[in-house]
Amino acid sequence: MSSIFSGSALRLSIFGQSHSEAIGMTLDGLPAGIPLDLDRLQTFLNRRAPGQNDWSTPRREEDRPEFLSGLKNGKTCGAPLTAVIRNGNTRGKDYEQLRVLPRPGHADYTAQLKYGGYQDYSGGGHFSGRLTAPLCISGGILKQMLQARGILCDARILSIGPVQDDSAFPASVAGKDFPTVSDGKAEEMKNVIAAARADGDSVGGVIECVIRGVPGGLGEPMFDGVENRIAQLAFAVPAVKGIEFGSGFAAAAMRGSENNDAYTVCDGRVVTTTNHAGGILGGITDGMPVVFRVAVKPTPSIARAQNSINLESMEPGILRISGRHDPCIVPRAVPVIEAVAAIAISDLLLGGKNIWN
Amino acid sequence: MSSIFSGSALRLSIFGQSHSEAIGMTLDGLPAGIPLDLDRLQTFLNRRAPGQNDWSTPRREEDRPEFLSGLKNGKTCGAPLTAVIRNGNTRGKDYEQLRVLPRPGHADYTAQLKYGGYQDYSGGGHFSGRLTAPLCISGGILKQMLQARGILCDARILSIGPVQDDSAFPASVAGKDFPTVSDGKAEEMKNVIAAARADGDSVGGVIECVIRGVPGGLGEPMFDGVENRIAQLAFAVPAVKGIEFGSGFAAAAMRGSENNDAYTVCDGRVVTTTNHAGGILGGITDGMPVVFRVAVKPTPSIARAQNSINLESMEPGILRISGRHDPCIVPRAVPVIEAVAAIAISDLLLGGKNIWN
Amino acid sequence: MSSIFSGSALRLSIFGQSHSEAIGMTLDGLPAGIPLDLDRLQTFLNRRAPGQNDWSTPRREEDRPEFLSGLKNGKTCGAPLTAVIRNGNTRGKDYEQLRVLPRPGHADYTAQLKYGGYQDYSGGGHFSGRLTAPLCISGGILKQMLQARGILCDARILSIGPVQDDSAFPASVAGKDFPTVSDGKAEEMKNVIAAARADGDSVGGVIECVIRGVPGGLGEPMFDGVENRIAQLAFAVPAVKGIEFGSGFAAAAMRGSENNDAYTVCDGRVVTTTNHAGGILGGITDGMPVVFRVAVKPTPSIARAQNSINLESMEPGILRISGRHDPCIVPRAVPVIEAVAAIAISDLLLGGKNIWN
Amino acid sequence: MSSIFSGSALRLSIFGQSHSEAIGMTLDGLPAGIPLDLDRLQTFLNRRAPGQNDWSTPRREEDRPEFLSGLKNGKTCGAPLTAVIRNGNTRGKDYEQLRVLPRPGHADYTAQLKYGGYQDYSGGGHFSGRLTAPLCISGGILKQMLQARGILCDARILSIGPVQDDSAFPASVAGKDFPTVSDGKAEEMKNVIAAARADGDSVGGVIECVIRGVPGGLGEPMFDGVENRIAQLAFAVPAVKGIEFGSGFAAAAMRGSENNDAYTVCDGRVVTTTNHAGGILGGITDGMPVVFRVAVKPTPSIARAQNSINLESMEPGILRISGRHDPCIVPRAVPVIEAVAAIAISDLLLGGKNIWN
Repeated sequence: MSSIFSGSALRLSIFGQSHSEAIGMTLDGLPAGIPLDLDRLQTFLNRRAPGQNDWSTPRREEDRPEFLSGLKNGKTCGAPLTAVIRNGNTRGKDYEQLRVLPRPGHADYTAQLKYGGYQDYSGGGHFSGRLTAPLCISGGILKQMLQARGILCDARILSIGPVQDDSAFPASVAGKDFPTVSDGKAEEMKNVIAAARADGDSVGGVIECVIRGVPGGLGEPMFDGVENRIAQLAFAVPAVKGIEFGSGFAAAAMRGSENNDAYTVCDGRVVTTTNHAGGILGGITDGMPVVFRVAVKPTPSIARAQNSINLESMEPGILRISGRHDPCIVPRAVPVIEAVAAIAISDLLLGGKNIWN
Repeated sequence: MSSIFSGSALRLSIFGQSHSEAIGMTLDGLPAGIPLDLDRLQTFLNRRAPGQNDWSTPRREEDRPEFLSGLKNGKTCGAPLTAVIRNGNTRGKDYEQLRVLPRPGHADYTAQLKYGGYQDYSGGGHFSGRLTAPLCISGGILKQMLQARGILCDARILSIGPVQDDSAFPASVAGKDFPTVSDGKAEEMKNVIAAARADGDSVGGVIECVIRGVPGGLGEPMFDGVENRIAQLAFAVPAVKGIEFGSGFAAAAMRGSENNDAYTVCDGRVVTTTNHAGGILGGITDGMPVVFRVAVKPTPSIARAQNSINLESMEPGILRISGRHDPCIVPRAVPVIEAVAAIAISDLLLGGKNIWN
Repeated sequence: MSSIFSGSALRLSIFGQSHSEAIGMTLDGLPAGIPLDLDRLQTFLNRRAPGQNDWSTPRREEDRPEFLSGLKNGKTCGAPLTAVIRNGNTRGKDYEQLRVLPRPGHADYTAQLKYGGYQDYSGGGHFSGRLTAPLCISGGILKQMLQARGILCDARILSIGPVQDDSAFPASVAGKDFPTVSDGKAEEMKNVIAAARADGDSVGGVIECVIRGVPGGLGEPMFDGVENRIAQLAFAVPAVKGIEFGSGFAAAAMRGSENNDAYTVCDGRVVTTTNHAGGILGGITDGMPVVFRVAVKPTPSIARAQNSINLESMEPGILRISGRHDPCIVPRAVPVIEAVAAIAISDLLLGGKNIWN
Repeated sequence: MSSIFSGSALRLSIFGQSHSEAIGMTLDGLPAGIPLDLDRLQTFLNRRAPGQNDWSTPRREEDRPEFLSGLKNGKTCGAPLTAVIRNGNTRGKDYEQLRVLPRPGHADYTAQLKYGGYQDYSGGGHFSGRLTAPLCISGGILKQMLQARGILCDARILSIGPVQDDSAFPASVAGKDFPTVSDGKAEEMKNVIAAARADGDSVGGVIECVIRGVPGGLGEPMFDGVENRIAQLAFAVPAVKGIEFGSGFAAAAMRGSENNDAYTVCDGRVVTTTNHAGGILGGITDGMPVVFRVAVKPTPSIARAQNSINLESMEPGILRISGRHDPCIVPRAVPVIEAVAAIAISDLLLGGKNIWN
């Protein structure tokens, strides 16, 4: 039990290691008849792929999925949908030392504790950020399905290191190469990334996702609410260390009279005048945009020398990571977070009846 | 699918509404032979119960569970463990108006969207904070089980409104009535709560939980990591709007060289010199204390008049809530968060084999 | 993981031991707004209850459920539905010897293997046939829901020992006290039961269930087909040792030209001229009645002396069971099998979308 | 929810259609460190593969799995194990007519009801018997794991049409090409198959599986017992229409004094003198061999003309199936049933703790 997500209607199985033959995913529970635009899917996947620009790793992979099953004449056929991406440009030797000298901030040591040396440590194995590619295949397909119902999942970079994007509603970011509301802030953020790279270091950031067009009444009480579901999926993304909905941690410092969203009527529809709840009350959507933010830690792979322990000799060792690594994973994680949002909302949308009549 | 949590080894079913005959829980998957100290359990439950002190609601309920099944001679017998708490002192009339005039910040309106008027709106129904009592029965039992293995789940109040507790390691808070590291800060926090109450308002806060003694190697990759699991459970607690692990959102502003935890050896054991990861890497514990924080929004039920909408007439309406409500839910939520931690860790601890030999 | 059934839309938790405070069930995932006729439910439960007639045990229990949650104004409210039955007339002393001298054909010994002596052996504990009462609460509620959609689950006694009921379509059995098509065969069967009782022995039988009005297209491929689902539930009923659908084992001796059901049109609707498939092809309903049969072994508790082993001394021992036991469990199991059918079909009916349009 | 099996410790995802790019499986939850002998696995898969002999279809497929993930140096590495088999020799045109003229006894019509025309009808799509190949990959791996613990899953042909194999304990069948106890009966069975083929017809049979070396105490009460688990998996095999454990349906005609298995001691170990229970009491193994039988219906694809309905015109139509089909699927289903047994037992074996000490 681990790499299969079981939702209300969907089950998503993610498989592969950084340097195994292939990585991929099976999405089970999709209704039949969903048209799939493979070009749009590829465009979406390219947003996550490495080597697309100057702020990420130069390692170039063709994240081009092959669909093994689940499609018939360009539409889903009701059977499980499986897609794989071959692992091509792998450099196993870069990782030899990691078998005994675990990288700080990575899962090398915890995988050793869990799997006792049998784990595939090469390139991070199953813990590699590369596994977000199949997550994006799944999310990209579901984004298309949701869009046909007027539901849009768009994420932006809210901060990189100390630089914050403007706070305006991020509707306009879709399609941007470096998705921020403010283009000026985008330049500042890129400078922060470049400076970290120059120092052999890395930097983290915050991603904000807004889901518009979500119908009210989605989500289940207690353990399967929208927040629980999105959180369960979001922490599957390596480097995510926090999540908040609506006002989130800021709400903790507010009074109820500030944080409560008053109801009013707009165009004959109940809406709230503010959206501190992030569109979710009691785990269930209220029809306002669902808003959440995730904290992404700085990439743990840095060029600088780091203190580690040789697990065989139990002697201190100095680790120097020579591979190619993103100084900041945040820009590439933006579509991954959109995928997370699309999977969570699709699952709840496809679930069963709430009312008997 | 909603009020049953399905973990690796445990399944937890929570049932009841604020004003139904009873609330309760069934915990399935417990090994046989766990001794249960009912007095210690009651002491734990009393920390959550209302009316224990001057900063919470005067509504007094006896949160005294009756065990219907699963025990034999004071120990678990392998069969599902079910306990119920009767709902006694209920005042249905307080809630009549809420049927048509939903309370801002509550699930009244979203429950109406989801269940179309069939929901039990009285006292918040199944969405009531009262449902955290059965969560605490489950968590209290598992805390005892974990403690016998040297695993301790302790939470403290990190902030109330603008007042922050000291940052020292919170080992000393266990057993405190108002669990903060600094007793001076506790007084300040109580004043903040009293001021909110005096204003007919409420205030939120942040709870920090530390789990010590957790063995390394717990947790599953991707969807069932320790973070995913704790988050899925934590968002079942009403008013929780955010969660972060280790440095959490602060990590987003750090560089990798700051946030990475260097490995060293202490007493022949691999440890990290810092704990920015909160004891979790790749979803798996590294043997350091697991640390997380949850953001609790201010209680939405406030005495002040609020703007709402009459759902029948679609006309604006002024809502005045006359019931008795906590001006701050944070102190009573502390044991609930400990329960969340205990459930998540127990489930992973009781799961199956990781290594074949 | 054991006593909670997780279906596509429903989750059913069964709890209790034969002699615990209570037995009961939680049904999660029911839509809101289903009206519940408690009198009809009680009539259904009485068909399973002991002591109703002269062919079952004289132990009289009031199987009268108390609803703790999930209802509002006589209808489901969307929250988990929990009902309990208090255990009254228990006689723990009857079972003292079973702790060390396991009853052949019962779970006494296997429970000892699994739970190492911590199990509640009294009255069979969690393995008691008494646990079918909460199964019937759940099934009885769902039968009402299905009936409102024209879906009827009716079972009959197909055989007791060597006596077979007539093979006619069993539509007429509903409401019969001893449900067989042929009243003459019913008398013969009762005689077989009486003879077994007189001999201090017991006898088994076969129950046939027919579900009429099932829409086509229900069920999922592979692991969650109608057959898988019904089978998973049916083997939760103690004493069930076999299940077959349509022609079942008889089909194994047929040729394809005999066993295939030819398609034809009747009243503008596709039907089959025979129903060897029992209404299920590829795990999915075809719109014909779903037909299945379960084999019920003879009650293992018999008055005759039996050979067993003293688990403490590992010496042979002679077991004499003095309690009151049904010489044939089959008549009382008939509503339980209807409950199984209703749970399986309801779950699939309430599941999510199959087609996207 | 459909083609993913979720057990106590294992999750198995099966994907692919008869004529999709590939079929395959992902097995999640395997401990790390299980050695995999690929040659033995291939030998096992070949038992299921078509075209191996003169009683099955001449369609020749290389059921040679490619492992995409989950292995490291020939052992499982803890990450999900994925293997695929490319679909080569497909002849889509054979199936064109089936889009509107469904084959009796197949899932063509029910798939149409469920997926509304979007299903992949070619070659039976996801409902094809070909999907038992990935089931066998999974089962073959787990058989190796179990064998290393002394647990053996062996099945034999108990009957073909009217011909019954001898009733002796089937320990000797392992490794036989046509696995029956009696070689004479094997010849008779082959004659029955040849006669059916000559008549343009098909024939069914019964498969018996015995699992030796199973430790006592495996299985969970109620819904997740050994019987429930095996049954849920067995009905995933196309053409299985019944299952029974131990004496099964024969027990229904017995008296308790006959069917109860008396306990005795043998070599210091508790055993039963008979095994009518098939090694399972209360859903839990008692340490005796687990015995079950499945009824396999005659292959629905027969050369003879059959009555069907044109789903577009709703006019009767005569169906002539020209493809190559097995006149009897039973011999090839034998390893599939062994796979089912291995998956069920492995899952329960790998599950969590039953006793706390």
